[in-house]
Amino acid sequence: MAAYSPPLDDLDFVLHDVLRVSEAAIPGYDQLDRETTAAILAEAGRLAAEALAPLNAVGDREGCRLENGVVRTPAGFKAAYDAVAEGGWIGIDLDPDYGGQGMPHLLNTAVGTMHAAANMALNMYWGLSHGAYNALHEHASEALKATWLPKLVTGEWSGTMNLTEPHCGTDLGLLRTRAEPQEDGSYRITGQKIFISAGEHDLTDNIVHLVLARIPGAPAGVKGISLFVAPKFLVNPDGSLGDRNALSCGKLEEKMGIHGNATCVMNYDGATGGLVGEPHKGLRAMFTMMNEARLAVGVQGLAQADAACQIAASYARERLQGRAAGAPANPDGPADPLIVHPDVRRMLMDQRAFVEGGRAFVLWACMLIDAHQRGGDAKADALVSLLTPVVKGFLTDKGFDATVQAQQVFGGHGYIEETGASQFVRDARIAMIYEGANGVQALDLVGRKLGADGGKPIMGFFEEVKAFIKDNEADERLKADFLDPLKAASKDLQAAAMHFVQTIKTPNVALAGSTDFLHLFGHVCLGYMWARMGQAALAGPEDDFRRAKLATGRYYMARLLPATALHLARIRSGDEVVMALPAEAF
Amino acid sequence: MAAYSPPLDDLDFVLHDVLRVSEAAIPGYDQLDRETTAAILAEAGRLAAEALAPLNAVGDREGCRLENGVVRTPAGFKAAYDAVAEGGWIGIDLDPDYGGQGMPHLLNTAVGTMHAAANMALNMYWGLSHGAYNALHEHASEALKATWLPKLVTGEWSGTMNLTEPHCGTDLGLLRTRAEPQEDGSYRITGQKIFISAGEHDLTDNIVHLVLARIPGAPAGVKGISLFVAPKFLVNPDGSLGDRNALSCGKLEEKMGIHGNATCVMNYDGATGGLVGEPHKGLRAMFTMMNEARLAVGVQGLAQADAACQIAASYARERLQGRAAGAPANPDGPADPLIVHPDVRRMLMDQRAFVEGGRAFVLWACMLIDAHQRGGDAKADALVSLLTPVVKGFLTDKGFDATVQAQQVFGGHGYIEETGASQFVRDARIAMIYEGANGVQALDLVGRKLGADGGKPIMGFFEEVKAFIKDNEADERLKADFLDPLKAASKDLQAAAMHFVQTIKTPNVALAGSTDFLHLFGHVCLGYMWARMGQAALAGPEDDFRRAKLATGRYYMARLLPATALHLARIRSGDEVVMALPAEAF
Repeated sequence: MAAYSPPLDDLDFVLHDVLRVSEAAIPGYDQLDRETTAAILAEAGRLAAEALAPLNAVGDREGCRLENGVVRTPAGFKAAYDAVAEGGWIGIDLDPDYGGQGMPHLLNTAVGTMHAAANMALNMYWGLSHGAYNALHEHASEALKATWLPKLVTGEWSGTMNLTEPHCGTDLGLLRTRAEPQEDGSYRITGQKIFISAGEHDLTDNIVHLVLARIPGAPAGVKGISLFVAPKFLVNPDGSLGDRNALSCGKLEEKMGIHGNATCVMNYDGATGGLVGEPHKGLRAMFTMMNEARLAVGVQGLAQADAACQIAASYARERLQGRAAGAPANPDGPADPLIVHPDVRRMLMDQRAFVEGGRAFVLWACMLIDAHQRGGDAKADALVSLLTPVVKGFLTDKGFDATVQAQQVFGGHGYIEETGASQFVRDARIAMIYEGANGVQALDLVGRKLGADGGKPIMGFFEEVKAFIKDNEADERLKADFLDPLKAASKDLQAAAMHFVQTIKTPNVALAGSTDFLHLFGHVCLGYMWARMGQAALAGPEDDFRRAKLATGRYYMARLLPATALHLARIRSGDEVVMALPAEAF
Repeated sequence: MAAYSPPLDDLDFVLHDVLRVSEAAIPGYDQLDRETTAAILAEAGRLAAEALAPLNAVGDREGCRLENGVVRTPAGFKAAYDAVAEGGWIGIDLDPDYGGQGMPHLLNTAVGTMHAAANMALNMYWGLSHGAYNALHEHASEALKATWLPKLVTGEWSGTMNLTEPHCGTDLGLLRTRAEPQEDGSYRITGQKIFISAGEHDLTDNIVHLVLARIPGAPAGVKGISLFVAPKFLVNPDGSLGDRNALSCGKLEEKMGIHGNATCVMNYDGATGGLVGEPHKGLRAMFTMMNEARLAVGVQGLAQADAACQIAASYARERLQGRAAGAPANPDGPADPLIVHPDVRRMLMDQRAFVEGGRAFVLWACMLIDAHQRGGDAKADALVSLLTPVVKGFLTDKGFDATVQAQQVFGGHGYIEETGASQFVRDARIAMIYEGANGVQALDLVGRKLGADGGKPIMGFFEEVKAFIKDNEADERLKADFLDPLKAASKDLQAAAMHFVQTIKTPNVALAGSTDFLHLFGHVCLGYMWARMGQAALAGPEDDFRRAKLATGRYYMARLLPATALHLARIRSGDEVVMALPAEAF
């Protein structure tokens, strides 16, 4: 039922007409001409539609099974994983020194928007490898890199991130897993980690666990946490697999969704591991990879919305129910299709305007990452650092809402599992939680990112938006529909930021308004993207694609962007009303 | 894990301090003195907490099973159902002529808020009996009533509503099930019905199905639909059970939630049924019972939010993670409880302010039903008819949002099924869909209810709100915090209604703005309830309960009610932006 149609035209438009990637002065972007990206994305889309999407419902229904310490993934997952690995998709943007293809991160993300839409649970297996690769590539010794990276890139091995323990998730300073140094320079790791995605499975020959732990005598709190690499199977000096390491999956969690991904309780019983980077600097190592990981989770929110929106639109076009208010659209049939009803159209437009705006937003953010990583652009780094919690929080909150709306289009048929609408809701739900719950993203945004470098990053954002408006406001076609609403929304964001500056001595004001600020910011970002897309659409030939783009953009500006005023009002209502009730009263 | 604590203090406050039920000039309300309601609600609450809530997770996990045509409900459901039936809870507000206790509908709803919170899937079995009872009581012949009603009241038999068919849900005019008249005055019913809640189960000796079908030669569309009663077992003239009727459950649906309730495909293969009311007037019969059924679904949304909010608050008080921005709240422990964090507090306050406001709203609506049904108050009838889609749509949309927020408080622990947070989300989701999807509620509101009787009902609502503000604005404690925001929100609602009047020649304007109008209206209703609760709280002794009530009310007025302006802005953006994209572009 839930076929997936890769949004190739839209990706092409965003990359080339909006972001104009091949003209960007970013090393490696000269590879990204329209023909090359079209060929790569078409192939990635084909894989998504033909190999991954058909297994999405299978994965949900079968889930993973733990039998005698071995986790069995759903039928077909292994073959699909192998096709992805053999196609070289895992290493698109990874270092050629370790077998990667060295393409821009942007391209990997464009591919990821489709793979995460087609099958989020399956896509996570190599998504996590990507994360583990990044942590090792950035922080590990050459010896460790030589051991672990090549096979993570080929997909022969996969990776995981072991942070959470039963008593601590966000507050990693509390973690208890310990790593005792051995005479040979290795460490023996003992403790329990929970919620470990892809902690154990049957897709690869080995699993490379990155584990946060304390070395005895380490300082208390977050300053005493170190990062280790501990594989499922130890690796012999010749690269062959050796003994089973002293770590195992103790349990699979029963979850609301992403059933096809094994969420493991991992027990470390004196497992052998190697230190990654310096002792006690493990959290820093984790943080350097977080920008990318958080953007990837933002992509999941967007991707689930895309997939859900597609099946909702198909259903609304096919299902006959009721009649249009004016002339019937299907006079010879027993009823008109659902899509004639303005309230159904409203739901579909909400989803579509979010998905297209969000797609541009996340690709723009990845372009900033490339500008920094490939071009050394410090300003781009500061901006994407500011935007990262917004991408993660806004795209996953709104992505989830979009899946709920898509389900609503189906009526009762959306509540039964058969149509697939429920799975998108259940799968999308986790993206609001993991890789830092969205409240933590909001805290990061107002507590760390907003004031970074004296507020220069957000001032830079405002200047960029202002310059865009100024450069384009002579175009009457853009001004009223796109630029004026963007200007108003941007002013709301500035007022909110200013309110936090003025109340800086009462940190609870910013904290109580943090989620509203994140959403306000997200709306301005999507509004900015829509203005840029509107401008690009008007600059091109007047075809169906561009007409639809303009109509969808006008919808966003008229009906979704005005939410900024509400978020500002809430922020201005302050912290007292939020904190008035004593904890005991709950 | 998910213990349920009956909100007895709050029910007492709403009934006696806000609605002042025992002083109301409604026949039968003199029974509702504080002592009586306290005793009844305490007993209902005990049943909810001790008998129903412990089976909530069991029902979710086990679900129902269809084996050889027989549906097995989850372990413990039968005993709990029997306790409910034996306690007389099914017939609280039903006609004493048929064994009911004849109490006001209001009291039944107050009980229902707790039973639906404790175990929605189980509560539905007798909730549906209540619906079937009402349809029969209102429309059936004396003979049919004598046959069916007494055992529906005792709970020995249960009831169902059979409307939906595979090709039609909302658009009942398309239905195909046919009923052929027999010489003995009975009918033979043939067709397939889907999504039939409690269509088959093992809780009762018989199941009384109300079925919409067409008599041969009936007019096309909704004017040719008749209502029938067809039992699982035919009943002999002496009241004993006879042969199995020619109807059966063909399949149980796999659903996102309410696993403990059997959602059946029902096959009618020439089943014997009796005509209820007049031929071809079946839809009217269904509609007369819809107000109550829709309010009951609104109660479900509210109730799931209540239950989810309770476990979220407990978790936030217990789970230690991070430190407060100022002085630590738990200096001797490793971390502070989650509840110190303003963003966690914001989530809990959102939920609490909605739940308490919604509880008052639905009880007020039920009081209007009683005023009409017991006191013949036509104005109350018109008002509750207007408010019904708002109760259903707003309380289920916002109730679902509240369950999602409650789940978010748990972080990763909310995504695994163990904590119970996921079940509240999955169960609450259906309430937005069934008994008329919320888009249909919005259509009913702007298409039928708003313009009814020249708009008198909504004018009456505005007058009531205005009078309340005028009567109380001398009280400075109420004015700024409660009455001014209510006045502003009420003006937004008036402006929205006026906008629809001005654009009446373009029906798509109201249709495209219908859901926003429903939400705008819902916020004004909850704002009005909060103003009344604020007034009642200030009139009483200054205790912890009333202090918390005022703080929660101020939160609603300051942070949630301002959403009215956004809804108005969306409504004013009109229909063109919603309908601009051609259907083929989706």
